[in-house]
Amino acid sequence: MADPDKSSVTSGARRPGSRGREDRRAARRKRAPPGAPFIQRKIGCFDILSEEGLCLIENNADQILKEVGMEFRGDPEILAIFRAAGADVSGERVRCEPGMCRSIIRKSAPRSFMQQARNPSNAVKLGDGATVLCPVFGPPFIHNLDEGRRYATLRDFENLVKIHHMLPYLHHSGGVVCEPVDLPANKRHLDMLYAHIRLSDRPFFGALIGSERANDSVAMAKILFGADYVENNCCLYAVSNTNAPLVLDSAMSGALKVYAAHGQAVAVTPWTLAGAMSPCTVAGTLAQVLAECLAGLALVQLIRPGAPCLMGSFASTLSMQSGAPTFGSPESGKMVLAAGQFARRLGVPFHTVGALTSSKIPDGQAEQESAYGLLMSVLAGANFINHATGWLEGGLVAGYEKTIIDADLCGNVQSFAEGIDLSGNAQALDAIREVGPGAHFLGSSHTLRNFETAMYRPAAADNNSYEQWLAEGGFDSAQRANSIWKRLLRDYEQPALDPAVDEALRDYIARRKASMPDQNYY
Amino acid sequence: MADPDKSSVTSGARRPGSRGREDRRAARRKRAPPGAPFIQRKIGCFDILSEEGLCLIENNADQILKEVGMEFRGDPEILAIFRAAGADVSGERVRCEPGMCRSIIRKSAPRSFMQQARNPSNAVKLGDGATVLCPVFGPPFIHNLDEGRRYATLRDFENLVKIHHMLPYLHHSGGVVCEPVDLPANKRHLDMLYAHIRLSDRPFFGALIGSERANDSVAMAKILFGADYVENNCCLYAVSNTNAPLVLDSAMSGALKVYAAHGQAVAVTPWTLAGAMSPCTVAGTLAQVLAECLAGLALVQLIRPGAPCLMGSFASTLSMQSGAPTFGSPESGKMVLAAGQFARRLGVPFHTVGALTSSKIPDGQAEQESAYGLLMSVLAGANFINHATGWLEGGLVAGYEKTIIDADLCGNVQSFAEGIDLSGNAQALDAIREVGPGAHFLGSSHTLRNFETAMYRPAAADNNSYEQWLAEGGFDSAQRANSIWKRLLRDYEQPALDPAVDEALRDYIARRKASMPDQNYY
Repeated sequence: MADPDKSSVTSGARRPGSRGREDRRAARRKRAPPGAPFIQRKIGCFDILSEEGLCLIENNADQILKEVGMEFRGDPEILAIFRAAGADVSGERVRCEPGMCRSIIRKSAPRSFMQQARNPSNAVKLGDGATVLCPVFGPPFIHNLDEGRRYATLRDFENLVKIHHMLPYLHHSGGVVCEPVDLPANKRHLDMLYAHIRLSDRPFFGALIGSERANDSVAMAKILFGADYVENNCCLYAVSNTNAPLVLDSAMSGALKVYAAHGQAVAVTPWTLAGAMSPCTVAGTLAQVLAECLAGLALVQLIRPGAPCLMGSFASTLSMQSGAPTFGSPESGKMVLAAGQFARRLGVPFHTVGALTSSKIPDGQAEQESAYGLLMSVLAGANFINHATGWLEGGLVAGYEKTIIDADLCGNVQSFAEGIDLSGNAQALDAIREVGPGAHFLGSSHTLRNFETAMYRPAAADNNSYEQWLAEGGFDSAQRANSIWKRLLRDYEQPALDPAVDEALRDYIARRKASMPDQNYY
Repeated sequence: MADPDKSSVTSGARRPGSRGREDRRAARRKRAPPGAPFIQRKIGCFDILSEEGLCLIENNADQILKEVGMEFRGDPEILAIFRAAGADVSGERVRCEPGMCRSIIRKSAPRSFMQQARNPSNAVKLGDGATVLCPVFGPPFIHNLDEGRRYATLRDFENLVKIHHMLPYLHHSGGVVCEPVDLPANKRHLDMLYAHIRLSDRPFFGALIGSERANDSVAMAKILFGADYVENNCCLYAVSNTNAPLVLDSAMSGALKVYAAHGQAVAVTPWTLAGAMSPCTVAGTLAQVLAECLAGLALVQLIRPGAPCLMGSFASTLSMQSGAPTFGSPESGKMVLAAGQFARRLGVPFHTVGALTSSKIPDGQAEQESAYGLLMSVLAGANFINHATGWLEGGLVAGYEKTIIDADLCGNVQSFAEGIDLSGNAQALDAIREVGPGAHFLGSSHTLRNFETAMYRPAAADNNSYEQWLAEGGFDSAQRANSIWKRLLRDYEQPALDPAVDEALRDYIARRKASMPDQNYY
């Protein structure tokens, strides 16, 4: 009982003045402030599989890699890398003996690492009990209450980067927060990278598809951070999606090779809709996902031992009646929990997805599915959660209001992940003694000391009485969110960027754009 | 590897015919059918507190009972019971030595028990890894899209009982699914009990307030089940809410005494809004909740050793800015997870609450908060989840559409709680071998064998394409739910009730109603 925070359990005499100040300081310390660069978990993970189940599926993954193998299409260099490492390469098919990939990964992959940001205080930790929340990635459409659903533009992209920059419980600026389809498909990655660099000072993604765009990403990162710094620090984050089942194509592997070679983070992430791209069962999908991760992560480590990498899983489900993708399903919950266990056993950070839904609008279905998905990923111990905000319609749409409503849950899980404060102040025994049976705590000295930080406060939720809610317009949460994102855009201030860096980035982009004709396909 | 379900891991040769049939049977066995009488969990619980934290708060609860004590107001019999058991009774204040209540409870309280239903196949298990989902309790208002928000009537009560009876993933008919305020306050419990008995054949609540209504509940249960049967089996479920902090009034204790004496289930459930009825901290609230539970459960066991009882916790939060109750908060999540741990350590089943929200309508906020709350309660290992469907506006409103949307999540958690099927069929190694890299599983023989039961199918969610969704009206989930509850009411069929029992119940109700004047207050 030496811990002063616990002394009120046993100490009869109290020194109110000094204890009060100490307790207030303790309360502030215990509560991560809004704007913490990442969540540092003080809670455990939820393990859904037993040791026996884990071994069974790990054995199945090994069996798949040995018997069926994985195809690396259109990239002879990768085949040579695997052949040199001892794999059985036949055509584009790579087969590995049980344990081979795991042992390559365990030998050199870091258990945790930092991704840098141009504002050093926004650097994020990947692994080691940290969780990083990131906006939606990839939608060609946007939705908001004013305009409904339409194709996204660069203006939307910039708006979404700004809105997220203003949201205290997001940690990462993301990547393709929406597809600016008003720009040529083969050049827009330059504008997107520039928008992230200029409009936010949080970490961001490199371009995912193709070695050329990955090289552009590295080049721009070197302008921002310095060339040597980039070679020795993780400054870019990238996802490499396998083409499940059991294929990695050259568009994905091309980018993977660039990032791995430069020591930038790669999250090897099978994207599966169970029933289409993997078996329609949880255990079957998990074995396939793990097999693909093992092959992809081994490739990263064979390219550059020690390169930062994450095991990823984006395992969703399918309506077996219509063939439509489904989200927030019980099967997806089971899969993310198990995948987190596999990543921990492998000894690499875990990347997954968050607030997914097939709803077209930010309604009850959207938030039921999204809350389910984000919570499961948090409980799975995810170290990076992509799509933590804004996703609608199976990822086709980035929702402005959905972003704001989801951000409330991001703040909730940050507070939740802090676990239970057991300090003397939090135990509040004196408050219970002071108030006694049948009275209330509203005016107690303990409440007065703690009320400012006692509870998490969501932004879009309305907790007022029916009468007050009605008097204020009787709005639903999407309507309130509409006001909030507009206010965030009004209040947004661009973080200062060194004019010389800005100039160099603009110059690089102009030269690259001039070097090739516009294309409206990838 | 003797388990035939796992033999495909090791067996090279396969007998497709016999294995196929066996696997299909296994798949059917593993998936609890819609309409299972309760959830039998195959997953663990999420422990948020360490052993050290648990002991700290248990010690604090003991300290509260010893130093502050609990008041039992207006009931000298209870004071005498505690005095005889060795407590320090002063006025209405009962103080107990550390460990006294826990030892009384552990000595005789059952770890699990069944609550019977007039349809024996609908009996529910409380405890032992079972989870029972129950409708909202108590709202004086209803909300639906056709009429908005208005006072509830007996017609609404009957509608909600019928709708829930038709929902396959609910297990309990509940109690005051809404307050039929068109009936006299002092007699409506008779009509509510009769509606549950007549319109559903699932288990139901006894009336919670006052010994007189509890006695009516026992009398009607005896007409339904037989007098001896009721004395020897749990046929009624009741919640006894403490008047936090640290008071049990005679309205609650009166009913508690009746149910305990007759061996009917009592869930001793402190209802706290942290910051008003308990300290504004999680650890402080937990100690107070546990203290109140210990006193209440000890009382139950002192009245009738072995009487079925549950430790309950309904620990919500307050907006410290407006004083409004808040739901789905991170603090509420932490509290329910910890409370579940305390119940397991005490050795009694755990009762708590589910899909709560302060939203006025079934919107994004409503489902974000509700999904959060229900999932936390499931992860907490709750054995009985009250308010699993329909709750709106801090419990003032029962929502017709909210009921339907919430029921989708009830089905989800039932499937989730089954854990991961590790049978040979579920491992699907042959499917992966058959399909191979780059192909798809939609037409694989494994998918064709499993597609009917492969995935959970929610009712109100729309997973179709934007174009199809728009062509079908572009409805939100509440609008779809509106059609669903109307269809359920149309399709509803009343389960047959023995006419003699029905006659006896009507006779009892008529006599009781005639015996007292109407009152419009409790």
